[in-house]
Amino acid sequence: MNNKGILIVVSGFSGAGKGTLMKELLTRYPDTYALSISATTRAPREGEVDGREYFFVSKDEFEKMIAKDKLIEYAKYVENYYGTPRDYVENKLEEGRDVILEIEIQGALNIKKLFPDTLLLFVTPPNAEELKRRLVGRGTETMDVIESRMNRACEEAQGMENYDYLIVNDSLDSCVEEMHAIIRGEHRRSSRNREFMQEIKEDLERMKQ
Amino acid sequence: MNNKGILIVVSGFSGAGKGTLMKELLTRYPDTYALSISATTRAPREGEVDGREYFFVSKDEFEKMIAKDKLIEYAKYVENYYGTPRDYVENKLEEGRDVILEIEIQGALNIKKLFPDTLLLFVTPPNAEELKRRLVGRGTETMDVIESRMNRACEEAQGMENYDYLIVNDSLDSCVEEMHAIIRGEHRRSSRNREFMQEIKEDLERMKQ
Repeated sequence: MNNKGILIVVSGFSGAGKGTLMKELLTRYPDTYALSISATTRAPREGEVDGREYFFVSKDEFEKMIAKDKLIEYAKYVENYYGTPRDYVENKLEEGRDVILEIEIQGALNIKKLFPDTLLLFVTPPNAEELKRRLVGRGTETMDVIESRMNRACEEAQGMENYDYLIVNDSLDSCVEEMHAIIRGEHRRSSRNREFMQEIKEDLERMKQ
Repeated sequence: MNNKGILIVVSGFSGAGKGTLMKELLTRYPDTYALSISATTRAPREGEVDGREYFFVSKDEFEKMIAKDKLIEYAKYVENYYGTPRDYVENKLEEGRDVILEIEIQGALNIKKLFPDTLLLFVTPPNAEELKRRLVGRGTETMDVIESRMNRACEEAQGMENYDYLIVNDSLDSCVEEMHAIIRGEHRRSSRNREFMQEIKEDLERMKQ
């Protein structure tokens, strides 16, 4: 069977718990997964560590990475660059690790266009009521905050259909196992194992002669 | 999320151990799966029990089932009819059980055409060498037997690409769990959860107003 890793993009509703989910998945299966870390030109926020949350680079360095084709995708938001370093991703895939990128919808669709084998996962609360609860909060938020969250969630929801699977985040434990089962299953997709099928066919033909 | 069952067709190389695999899957997860039993007009062989291996019916009864649209698919091999009774499959799917049909490739593709949501699984030994070993046997088979197995395997291999997943039967235990993981994952496919996504979108739009 195909032993190369799968490139996985995880997106989802804000507050759906993507970060916690990724962390738990990597803790439970450290040899199976690798988390890609983005490069950015924005300044580190308090508590952020270079090489953990992001690789913090200068604008000049970032533009050199672009010029040398060192990024598999990048985008500019509000004067800052964000991008996915190519070497790390390709090396880990070659080693057989599944590489996870946590990026938003537009970036996800760009990656899928460039790498059609990319697996797109969308993290969502178990139902609309729960999503509401998370958006509205505990009644301590201003109307402005709620409205802005709502608008963002509406935008995020628009791209859902383009994802391959929905990851339903009800309880962390079952959600992690479900995500792991989905990815494990994807390795057995026939479209990811064309060489294996070809080899079996050729061997059978050879034996007939 | 969508709680309806998934219609699953299992095919694969002869001698790949489909029967044992299905039996073990149903023993471990009796509330999750249901095995569809075909109706046939052929005579029961020794040890076969009506309602276990097949529903044994007369030619007349079978043709009445066809006329009354009581079969989701049927075929005639060597003067005998074989078919899948509709009621059992539809009732179990409605109850939320995943219904498994063990049929050969042509039947599988017919079912997929009629029910595009059908999940097609193909059971295969882990590699061509292992397949060879199973086909050639222990050196006690005649050349005729080996040749006929070989031809059959070549035919079976032709349709592999049309299946959604390959189920690699190396050890029974891991194979059963892998198959279960694949099916569990499929329930989370976004294409199987259009209503869920639509509902979340509509709820978000309503909240904005």
